[in-house]
Amino acid sequence: MARTYTVSELAELLGGVVLGDGTVTISGLGSLETAKPGELTFLANPKYASKVADTAAGAVLMAAGAERFDKCAIQVANPYLCFAKLLTLFYTTPHEVLGVLPLAVVDESATIAKGATIYPGAFVGKRAVVGAGSVVYPGAVIYDDVVIGENCTIHATAVIRERCRVGNRCVLQPGAVIGSDGFGYAPDGASYYPIPQIGIVVLDDEVEIGANSCIDRAAIEVTRIGRGTKLDNLVQIAHNCKIGEDCMIVSQVGISGSATIGNHVTLAGQVGVAGHLTIGDNVLVGAQSGVPSSLAANAAYSGTPTMPHREWLKSAMVVPRLPEMKKTIASLEKRIAELESRLNQATQER
Amino acid sequence: MARTYTVSELAELLGGVVLGDGTVTISGLGSLETAKPGELTFLANPKYASKVADTAAGAVLMAAGAERFDKCAIQVANPYLCFAKLLTLFYTTPHEVLGVLPLAVVDESATIAKGATIYPGAFVGKRAVVGAGSVVYPGAVIYDDVVIGENCTIHATAVIRERCRVGNRCVLQPGAVIGSDGFGYAPDGASYYPIPQIGIVVLDDEVEIGANSCIDRAAIEVTRIGRGTKLDNLVQIAHNCKIGEDCMIVSQVGISGSATIGNHVTLAGQVGVAGHLTIGDNVLVGAQSGVPSSLAANAAYSGTPTMPHREWLKSAMVVPRLPEMKKTIASLEKRIAELESRLNQATQER
Amino acid sequence: MARTYTVSELAELLGGVVLGDGTVTISGLGSLETAKPGELTFLANPKYASKVADTAAGAVLMAAGAERFDKCAIQVANPYLCFAKLLTLFYTTPHEVLGVLPLAVVDESATIAKGATIYPGAFVGKRAVVGAGSVVYPGAVIYDDVVIGENCTIHATAVIRERCRVGNRCVLQPGAVIGSDGFGYAPDGASYYPIPQIGIVVLDDEVEIGANSCIDRAAIEVTRIGRGTKLDNLVQIAHNCKIGEDCMIVSQVGISGSATIGNHVTLAGQVGVAGHLTIGDNVLVGAQSGVPSSLAANAAYSGTPTMPHREWLKSAMVVPRLPEMKKTIASLEKRIAELESRLNQATQER
Repeated sequence: MARTYTVSELAELLGGVVLGDGTVTISGLGSLETAKPGELTFLANPKYASKVADTAAGAVLMAAGAERFDKCAIQVANPYLCFAKLLTLFYTTPHEVLGVLPLAVVDESATIAKGATIYPGAFVGKRAVVGAGSVVYPGAVIYDDVVIGENCTIHATAVIRERCRVGNRCVLQPGAVIGSDGFGYAPDGASYYPIPQIGIVVLDDEVEIGANSCIDRAAIEVTRIGRGTKLDNLVQIAHNCKIGEDCMIVSQVGISGSATIGNHVTLAGQVGVAGHLTIGDNVLVGAQSGVPSSLAANAAYSGTPTMPHREWLKSAMVVPRLPEMKKTIASLEKRIAELESRLNQATQER
Repeated sequence: MARTYTVSELAELLGGVVLGDGTVTISGLGSLETAKPGELTFLANPKYASKVADTAAGAVLMAAGAERFDKCAIQVANPYLCFAKLLTLFYTTPHEVLGVLPLAVVDESATIAKGATIYPGAFVGKRAVVGAGSVVYPGAVIYDDVVIGENCTIHATAVIRERCRVGNRCVLQPGAVIGSDGFGYAPDGASYYPIPQIGIVVLDDEVEIGANSCIDRAAIEVTRIGRGTKLDNLVQIAHNCKIGEDCMIVSQVGISGSATIGNHVTLAGQVGVAGHLTIGDNVLVGAQSGVPSSLAANAAYSGTPTMPHREWLKSAMVVPRLPEMKKTIASLEKRIAELESRLNQATQER
Repeated sequence: MARTYTVSELAELLGGVVLGDGTVTISGLGSLETAKPGELTFLANPKYASKVADTAAGAVLMAAGAERFDKCAIQVANPYLCFAKLLTLFYTTPHEVLGVLPLAVVDESATIAKGATIYPGAFVGKRAVVGAGSVVYPGAVIYDDVVIGENCTIHATAVIRERCRVGNRCVLQPGAVIGSDGFGYAPDGASYYPIPQIGIVVLDDEVEIGANSCIDRAAIEVTRIGRGTKLDNLVQIAHNCKIGEDCMIVSQVGISGSATIGNHVTLAGQVGVAGHLTIGDNVLVGAQSGVPSSLAANAAYSGTPTMPHREWLKSAMVVPRLPEMKKTIASLEKRIAELESRLNQATQER
C-alpha cells in the first residue's frame, strides 16, 4: 500500500493545524511505541503524554497544547477520531465496482444501480432494489421487494427478508438476518397457531448489524433501527421494537418485542430487555443485566432486575458476604436471647 | 390485496356466530382504534371492551356477550386466535410452486416431490427427500440423506446436516442450523479428541426454528424437538436433548446436553439449562434464569440457581437492600455489645 | 457399514492388552446395557463396574483390573478416549475427495491443493489457498487472501473474511463467521465513526468453531485462537482476543475485546468476560458467570461478578433466605430496642 501524504495534506484533510515542518512525508500509521520516522502516531489519552517525547514517529496527531512537545504535530480537536479516519485513508480500499457478476442470481425485475456490485452466488429477488455503490457478497440473499440504499455492504450469507428496507451506508456483517418472522403465536388450546408477521424491518442510514445478529420483522407495522445505531454480533431484536439513533448494542444482547429504546443508549454485552417497555435517552445498562421495566433517561443501571448502577455495585459487593451475614444474624439472635433471659432474671431477682 | 368476504362467510370459516348484518363486506383488518368501516377488528382483552362502542370497524370479532354492543359482530370462543387466522386469510400468500429452478443444485439421487420448490442457489444432497409443498430458499443447504416432510419452509442459508429429519409444516428461519456436531470431546492428557457425533436431529411436525438457532445432532441416537414446539432466534439445543411438544423456547436460551424437557414448557429469554436433567410438563422458567437441576412439573421458577418464582421475586426485592442490611447488622451488633456491657455492670454493681 | 475387526486387531490399534480370546470378531459398538455379542462396549466410570458381569457384549474396553471380570477385554489406560477412537473407526467415513465441483465459484488466482474438495455453491476468492484434504461445503464463503491448512472441514454457510488464516485439521460448523469486523467506533460528537478493522483472525491447528459462532478480526493485529481450543455454538469472541491452547468455550459465551485467556481454560455456557483482562491457565468459570476483571490461574470461579466457586455456592444458597433474613433483622432490632428500654428503666429504678 504505497500511499504517501505530507503532514500538511493530512492536516488539511482532517481540518487540523500543523505545528512544525508540514513537508514531512507520511506513508503509514503506528502506535507511540512502534511508529517509525515515516509514520504518524496519535495521542488521545493525556495519560500517555510523556511517551510523545520518545516516539520515533514522523508526526503526532494530538489535541491542543502540542507546542510543548517540540514534535512535528497535527493539532485536532479529536485525535482518536482523526486517527480512525487516517486508518481508513491509509489501509482500506474501496470496494471494487464490478456490476452483476456471472453466477449472481438477480431477478430480471430487480433494479441494480450503476456502481453496485453483486457477487457470484448472491441472490436478489423480484422487484428488489440495490443502490449505487452497494456491494452484495457471495451467499447473501435478498428476498423480493427489498430496498437497499447506496454504499451499503451486505456481507456473505447475510439475509434480508421480503419488503425490508435498508438505508444508505449500512453494513451487514456475515450471517446477519433482517426480517425473520417475529415470535408470535396464538394459543389454540394445547397448541400454538403462528400469527402471520406481515410487517417489515427498516434500518435507517449508517446502521451496522453484527455477524449472525437477528432482527425480526414486525407483526403488522415496522421494527425500526435508528440512524447511526450499531449492533454487535449475535444480538436479538424482537418484533415491533423501535431502537433510537446512535445506540451501541453490544454482543449477545436480547431485546423483547415492542420495546422502545431512546437515542444514545448503550446496552453492554448479554443484557436482556423485557418487552413493551421504554428505555430513555442516554441510558447505559451494564453487562448481563436484566431490564424488567422501563428505565428513566440519562442514567446508568445494572443488575437483574436492574437498579441504579451505583446501588448495584454496592449490593454486588455484599453478595459474597451473605454466608457470614447469616452467621452473624444467628449469633446476634443468640446473644439477644441470652440478654433477655439475664434481664428477666435480674428483674425477677429484685 | 383485493380480497373481500362477507361477515357471514368469515363467520362460517371461523365457526362463529353472526350478530347483526351478515352481508356487510370486509376487505381488511385493523385495531379497535384504527379500523375503518370496510374492516374487521377484534376484542380479545375484556379490559378494552369500552372501545368497542367507538370503533369505526365494519365488524368485531369477540367472545360471548357481543349482543350488548349493538355492533355487527362475529362471536367466537377465541377471538385472538380467529384474528390470527384472518391475518393469514387476508394478508399472506401461499408460496409459489415453482419446482426445481435453474441454478438450484440438486443431486440426481435426491427426491423432490411434485409441488415442492427449490430456489436457485439452494443445495440438496444425495438421496435427500423434499416433500410436497415444501420450499427451499436460496442459499439453504440440505446435506445427504436428509428427509424433509410436506409443506415446510426452509429459509435462506438454513442448513440441515446429513441424515436429519424434518416433519411436516415445519419452518426454519434464515441461518438456522440443524444437526451440527455435538460438543463432545474425550480428554487425551492435555488435549481433546473429538468424539464422532453419529446421531441425528429429528424435528417433529409443526416445529419452528428461529433465525440462527442451532440444534446439535446426538452423539449416538437422536436429539428430538417435539410436535408444535417453537424456538425463537439464537437458541442453542445441545446434543441428545429431548424437548417435548408445544414448548416455547424464547430467544438466546441455551439447553445443555442430554436434558429432557416436558410438554408445554416455556423457557423465557436467555435462560440457561444444565445437562442431564429433567424439566416437568407445564413448567415456566423466567428470563435469564439458570437451571442447575431438575424442576418439578406445573410450576414457575426463576433465578440463578432457580427457585420457585414467587420466592425469587421476594429475594430479588431484598438484593438492593443488602448494603443497608449489612449496616443494620453492624449497628445491632454494637448495640448488643453495649447492652451486654451495661448488663454486666448492672449485675456486678448489685 | 460392514467393518469387522478381531479383538486383537483393535487392541493393537489402541495400544491395549487383550484379556481372553483375541480372535473374537467385533463389528460394532454399544453401551453396557445394549451391546450384543458381536459388539464391543466400554467401562469408563468404575461406578458401573457391576454391569460388566451382565453385558452381552463380545468384548469390553476397560482400564487396569479387567481380569476380575472373566470377560473378553481390551485393557487400555483411557477407555473413554479409546471408545471415541473406535466410534471414528466403525462409524465415520472420510470425506470424499472430489476436487473442485461444477458450480463451485473459485477465483482463478486461488490455489486449491490436490486432494481438496470444493462443493457446488461454495465460493473461494482471489489468491485464497485451500490445503490438501480440506473440504469446503456448499454455501461456504472464503474471501480473498484467506489461507486454509490441510484436512480442514468448512461446513455449509461458514464464512471466512479476507486474509484470515486457518490451521490444519480445523473444523468450522455451519454458519461460523471468522473475521467479521471488530466492534470499534470513535465517538464523533453525537455519532460514531467506524474504526477500520484491518487486522485478521488466526486459528491454530485443531481448532473447532461451533455453529453460528463469531470471531471478530483484530483492529490492527491478530485475534488468535490457540491450538486445540474448541468453541461450542453461538460463541462470541471480540477483536484482539488471544485465547490459549486446549480451552473449552461452551455455548453462548461472550468474550469482550482484547481479553487474554490462558491454556486449558473452561468457560461454561453463557459466561460473559469483560475486555482487557487476563484469565490464567486451567481456570474454570461456572455457567452464566460474569467476569469483570482478571482471574488467577488454577482455580474455579462463579457468579456475577465472579468470586471463588465455593464462596459462590455458599452465597447462592443464602439468596433464597434473604426475605427471611430481612424479617429476622427487623425482629432483632425490635427486641434490642425493648431490651434497651427495659435496661434503661431498670437502671433508673435503682
